[in-house]
Amino acid sequence: MKQKVVLAYSGGLDTSVILKWLINKGFDVVAFVADLGQNEDFDAAKEKALKLGASKVYIEDVKEEFVTDFIFPAIRANAVYEGRYLMGTSLARPLIAKKQIEIAEKENAEYVSHGATGKGNDQVRFELTYMKLNPKIKIIAPWKDAEFLSQFKGRSDMIEFANKNGIPVKATKEAPYSTDANLMHISYEAGILEDPNLTPSEEMFEMTKSPKDAPDQETIIEIEFKSGNPVKVTNKNDGTIKAKPLELFQYLNKIGGENGIGRIDMVENRFVGLKSRGVYETPAGTILHIAHRDIEGITLDREVMHLREMLMPKFAELIYYGFWYSPEMDFLRAAFDKSQEHVSGTVHLSLYKGNCMVIGRESNESLYNQDLSSMDVLGGYDQKDALGFIRLNALRLKASSLRNKR
Amino acid sequence: MKQKVVLAYSGGLDTSVILKWLINKGFDVVAFVADLGQNEDFDAAKEKALKLGASKVYIEDVKEEFVTDFIFPAIRANAVYEGRYLMGTSLARPLIAKKQIEIAEKENAEYVSHGATGKGNDQVRFELTYMKLNPKIKIIAPWKDAEFLSQFKGRSDMIEFANKNGIPVKATKEAPYSTDANLMHISYEAGILEDPNLTPSEEMFEMTKSPKDAPDQETIIEIEFKSGNPVKVTNKNDGTIKAKPLELFQYLNKIGGENGIGRIDMVENRFVGLKSRGVYETPAGTILHIAHRDIEGITLDREVMHLREMLMPKFAELIYYGFWYSPEMDFLRAAFDKSQEHVSGTVHLSLYKGNCMVIGRESNESLYNQDLSSMDVLGGYDQKDALGFIRLNALRLKASSLRNKR
Amino acid sequence: MKQKVVLAYSGGLDTSVILKWLINKGFDVVAFVADLGQNEDFDAAKEKALKLGASKVYIEDVKEEFVTDFIFPAIRANAVYEGRYLMGTSLARPLIAKKQIEIAEKENAEYVSHGATGKGNDQVRFELTYMKLNPKIKIIAPWKDAEFLSQFKGRSDMIEFANKNGIPVKATKEAPYSTDANLMHISYEAGILEDPNLTPSEEMFEMTKSPKDAPDQETIIEIEFKSGNPVKVTNKNDGTIKAKPLELFQYLNKIGGENGIGRIDMVENRFVGLKSRGVYETPAGTILHIAHRDIEGITLDREVMHLREMLMPKFAELIYYGFWYSPEMDFLRAAFDKSQEHVSGTVHLSLYKGNCMVIGRESNESLYNQDLSSMDVLGGYDQKDALGFIRLNALRLKASSLRNKR
Amino acid sequence: MKQKVVLAYSGGLDTSVILKWLINKGFDVVAFVADLGQNEDFDAAKEKALKLGASKVYIEDVKEEFVTDFIFPAIRANAVYEGRYLMGTSLARPLIAKKQIEIAEKENAEYVSHGATGKGNDQVRFELTYMKLNPKIKIIAPWKDAEFLSQFKGRSDMIEFANKNGIPVKATKEAPYSTDANLMHISYEAGILEDPNLTPSEEMFEMTKSPKDAPDQETIIEIEFKSGNPVKVTNKNDGTIKAKPLELFQYLNKIGGENGIGRIDMVENRFVGLKSRGVYETPAGTILHIAHRDIEGITLDREVMHLREMLMPKFAELIYYGFWYSPEMDFLRAAFDKSQEHVSGTVHLSLYKGNCMVIGRESNESLYNQDLSSMDVLGGYDQKDALGFIRLNALRLKASSLRNKR
Repeated sequence: MKQKVVLAYSGGLDTSVILKWLINKGFDVVAFVADLGQNEDFDAAKEKALKLGASKVYIEDVKEEFVTDFIFPAIRANAVYEGRYLMGTSLARPLIAKKQIEIAEKENAEYVSHGATGKGNDQVRFELTYMKLNPKIKIIAPWKDAEFLSQFKGRSDMIEFANKNGIPVKATKEAPYSTDANLMHISYEAGILEDPNLTPSEEMFEMTKSPKDAPDQETIIEIEFKSGNPVKVTNKNDGTIKAKPLELFQYLNKIGGENGIGRIDMVENRFVGLKSRGVYETPAGTILHIAHRDIEGITLDREVMHLREMLMPKFAELIYYGFWYSPEMDFLRAAFDKSQEHVSGTVHLSLYKGNCMVIGRESNESLYNQDLSSMDVLGGYDQKDALGFIRLNALRLKASSLRNKR
Repeated sequence: MKQKVVLAYSGGLDTSVILKWLINKGFDVVAFVADLGQNEDFDAAKEKALKLGASKVYIEDVKEEFVTDFIFPAIRANAVYEGRYLMGTSLARPLIAKKQIEIAEKENAEYVSHGATGKGNDQVRFELTYMKLNPKIKIIAPWKDAEFLSQFKGRSDMIEFANKNGIPVKATKEAPYSTDANLMHISYEAGILEDPNLTPSEEMFEMTKSPKDAPDQETIIEIEFKSGNPVKVTNKNDGTIKAKPLELFQYLNKIGGENGIGRIDMVENRFVGLKSRGVYETPAGTILHIAHRDIEGITLDREVMHLREMLMPKFAELIYYGFWYSPEMDFLRAAFDKSQEHVSGTVHLSLYKGNCMVIGRESNESLYNQDLSSMDVLGGYDQKDALGFIRLNALRLKASSLRNKR
Repeated sequence: MKQKVVLAYSGGLDTSVILKWLINKGFDVVAFVADLGQNEDFDAAKEKALKLGASKVYIEDVKEEFVTDFIFPAIRANAVYEGRYLMGTSLARPLIAKKQIEIAEKENAEYVSHGATGKGNDQVRFELTYMKLNPKIKIIAPWKDAEFLSQFKGRSDMIEFANKNGIPVKATKEAPYSTDANLMHISYEAGILEDPNLTPSEEMFEMTKSPKDAPDQETIIEIEFKSGNPVKVTNKNDGTIKAKPLELFQYLNKIGGENGIGRIDMVENRFVGLKSRGVYETPAGTILHIAHRDIEGITLDREVMHLREMLMPKFAELIYYGFWYSPEMDFLRAAFDKSQEHVSGTVHLSLYKGNCMVIGRESNESLYNQDLSSMDVLGGYDQKDALGFIRLNALRLKASSLRNKR
Repeated sequence: MKQKVVLAYSGGLDTSVILKWLINKGFDVVAFVADLGQNEDFDAAKEKALKLGASKVYIEDVKEEFVTDFIFPAIRANAVYEGRYLMGTSLARPLIAKKQIEIAEKENAEYVSHGATGKGNDQVRFELTYMKLNPKIKIIAPWKDAEFLSQFKGRSDMIEFANKNGIPVKATKEAPYSTDANLMHISYEAGILEDPNLTPSEEMFEMTKSPKDAPDQETIIEIEFKSGNPVKVTNKNDGTIKAKPLELFQYLNKIGGENGIGRIDMVENRFVGLKSRGVYETPAGTILHIAHRDIEGITLDREVMHLREMLMPKFAELIYYGFWYSPEMDFLRAAFDKSQEHVSGTVHLSLYKGNCMVIGRESNESLYNQDLSSMDVLGGYDQKDALGFIRLNALRLKASSLRNKR
């Protein structure tokens, strides 16, 4: 009996070549395509995979799960990698890998496979997830396989293989960079972008208008949060309301994109030890990040916020490196989730030509003195208390001054 | 003989009242006005203080020192308080207090005094600095003094006192909020801004144009860094070059302000335990913060960056709380300074209607693989190495999966 | 009607004076004595309080709660303050204060009071707990009260007051140091111990024998943990078994004390800014701390352990400073509790003349490779994997070497 | 011309086999033996290497450098891995590797080699150091080499090879565990110790007497520190004084060993992802660790201590993982070194049957209030200051209580 492998399939040239290569090696290939909101003809992908010899094709719509179980936890954590990257790709990978493992178990497949390169982060995210969720699974990673690598040294080898094996190749010439697209973002890297000083041309961007082309009128919106999650978006200009996770996220992508919000250009550090230049557009993610941080300002205890701030870079690192499913992530999430219980309220924002500006906020869970009427009843704040407060805080400073002068 | 006190004097109503109140209590008052770049008539302030009875007035231009010894170290650290505030006020206070102590020593004054309220952060920043730099100094903080507080319960008490004591009071009615201005920023708080949901009107802002009123053409600039410090700013539109710390900072304020950059509206946590709403405009600081983070992306080692990111919130907290001069700050600065040795290179930015976008960067100190020609000579990166890398990273994940399933 | 106050009462001279002083000031005083396992005649204390005029006396046995809800959470966290102090006093204070607040609510008392000095940590621990658990409660802290302080400047003032007010004073002369005793420890400080170089004499110690006087034969014990909590102690020398929290803790105190275990002499940093010299004996706490750390060694994931290690000092600081009931403690406890799910197994220890040595451990929740039979089935560990692992870990080191040599 | 390799040689069976194997493969082998204080016949090792065909043998006494540049920095940092391990092996590896690289440069050798296994930490420590100090060096790690591994599957293959190649094999049977010995410690692992529940027999230990066999009389010593480094050890029993780094360290090993101090038995986490059981004896290291922590208690500022405590686990992790030479270590060391400037004074200790008890300390750099005479002159500590201090610290606790109850 043939050995079965579940391949993360995209419909593109690379994974089509891999699909065929696996079949040629004698595998029974089950193709899996995750619908994460990318702009893709899923029917065509299915047909293509079947035509190439896949024994089965799974197309799964995981958009809702992506939003609620991956994007929102990152928003709740204010997760940003190296100060800027909102991790649209990093968040999608563990979900794809989880689904692959589920299908592998359903299909009794011993193997999973993916088309991520051996220099990137995605291979790590896929494989750590595979091994955590099913330590017995076997992994075929062609781009780390000596045989595969010696067969396919460049794009021309792949096109030749494609032509020989009946894999349709788009007539279009190779893109000058790689992209990864899903509901949360489109990323651009490699190719001409490897020059860190090359400014990408305006045509590259797909999710966002240039701030220069955005409307001259600002869009005023309100975002309501409950326990750290966005639960309602209201467009004050036209009265549109969205109150379901996926819908509101897609809506924020739409109006964020129209207003030119969420572009980032940076050089970042990969887990495998290389630096890499990436350009990202993340409209909804950017708006939610800004709004969430603001509602925390008024509802989160200071010490919790400062502890969480210290730990956020680790949280983001775990996501970026591929440790979404890991004991250390469970450890941090227990605390981070705890912090969000009272993070509820509404943030008012102005979207305008690339800017996402907070213009006000209100909350029934406010810790702001002016909102805690009972606080003043209790005697409020006695300015003279600051005397002792400062003096005792200064004690050890005075001690070290006196000591050092000795 | 009279006891001498060095008062941090601004020329405004509050510190004029305090000056007179101190004189009435029998003190010999030396007034000190720090020129931190705020828009002020320093000669008039001097004259006013003398007229009110100050025995001496010091006006000191500390702008250069403010930029190089306070603002730049914060930029080098990417210091941001609670994710947003660049701390223009926090950075100025220890400098003012340090100068006061120097003057007190020169003048043989036993006392220093300031006009900061008992509910805010500034009192702490002043007084911790006083006590650290001179543990023997005595502090008069009228806004925590029972006698003063019972005498001055509101603004009308102050005006009455002013009228009685020949303190000129501007005819203008009270501002609807408080401000603090210096080279780095203007802050707005209190008054009508205490309502966290009130959107400030456009007329409030002084350093920045509204993004809506900013030019339709972007301004392209380059900022060169050496060991973490900005050393040259070039305006690519018109060829302007600024290469001295104060000059380049003021120039960035100018073009940043014109392009509507650096406004922030937030609710923050004070050291004294209250939440407070603040609105800030920090044009040059914002641009430098963005540019510095970008040049770090290409020059800073990953692990150093991640450690520094974890410690940055503490660094910012120390500045915000008033511990600029403290053993723990010395501890952190030793490491932070070490990290900046190779943070050199040039960042290209586009300033446009509130946006400050990085559009490229270059560096002779790059750690980016493409810039390290010798790296490839050494064999570069073997994709197959990732196999073992991932497997060993997965080992403990597999172990915990197997254990947990038991 | 008289105003009612619930006083934390010990039966000693200080709190008896305070009790009377409160009555003299017109308060209705309810005395509360917590039985935390200290060596005390609780009936006598009750009688004394009533005789002095207390309207009611509560004696509550909180030993069980102290062990399960305060000591064990600290053990699960490996909580140690400044590397050495196991915080027997710090852990007891929030429990006493919580009980006081409960009684105040039951008794409709508006006030609580305690006899802790104004220089120490205990006042903070009491009062922060009071205010967190009941923000409306009013606090009488005589040792920070100007009137009380001016009346009682030294011990002789208290004895004079006692004599005048019918408070029985023990004939014994004042102890040369202060102590605090409970189930977990006895602490010694102040008095002659203020000289940090004075070695306390052997007679001072009450819970532990000197290692020199301990038995010549070692005592071999086993401690079983379930999810981080000790659930069984077995004495292998004589077969004694204890399996209830309070019983096993008391038993470990007994055999730990007999074997001279758990003495510490240190200079520590108080929250109020002073350094303080303390001597402690914590027999059971020391043994459990050592055993718990060991069972974690074999059952806890590496990354969870390292994160927890980094956060433990903060956890201990919060306990020591008095923030047991606080949002930031809830935040950390959520993560710390999560970490303990699989911390189960048995540690074998030898107790001998002050030494508590781990001599073996076993666990059904082990992550140790030799205990995970399925691990080897999965292919185990391929030494060649280390090649790629090390190479990718070295990549950025090579990059910075090449860069720095440039 | 032959390619030259510098081999870290110990004189034992493993590295002798590797030496010969390298020669058989056509290499010109330069053997390097580091004298780190292990009990070894270095002349015999040299002779053996030459006889086996090494072209040159370097025997270098690096004991002094090991103490001052590796052990003392770890002591100054209170570095302990996973709460217990003082890292005697981890500290020695970067020194050996550094020397190898120096010899390779002197000898124009392109290669370095070591005999560490592919499952352990040492390979990482060696190789990361090699690559950091000379990114162009080539590494031969036989225990990760497919050919070598297939040739040598067990000890019998090595003995057979040895017999065939004239490598003398000691008649003694294989040790039941592996050891690594140097000035700082002896470690025991593998073999019978892989059973985490097996208690090692008393005969195993070489550096320390059993506490049971230690003298009945305690040894009283004083250790003087200057800026974190031990500079003098005085035995108060017999007046012995040692004041040079290596001498005092060796002397502490002697008296620590005689008094049964410094044994640890633990399961620890390796960098390669495995858990491992190790038993260690580290007499001098243990005493210095305890003494150093104590002198810090009286001389180090609280906030510096707490920050350093939080970062120490990372510092220890870097040492344990092999990142002694790394940008992140430089980052941390800058701060840690800064912290030690005033860590000077003398600690008094009692060594007795496994116990190393602090019995007093004194310092001219003390921050202890009682030692800062000028502190009291300045007004000292006003108990009433604690009122405001506690109230402001409680503000946010009250706010969250009021909010949560809403």
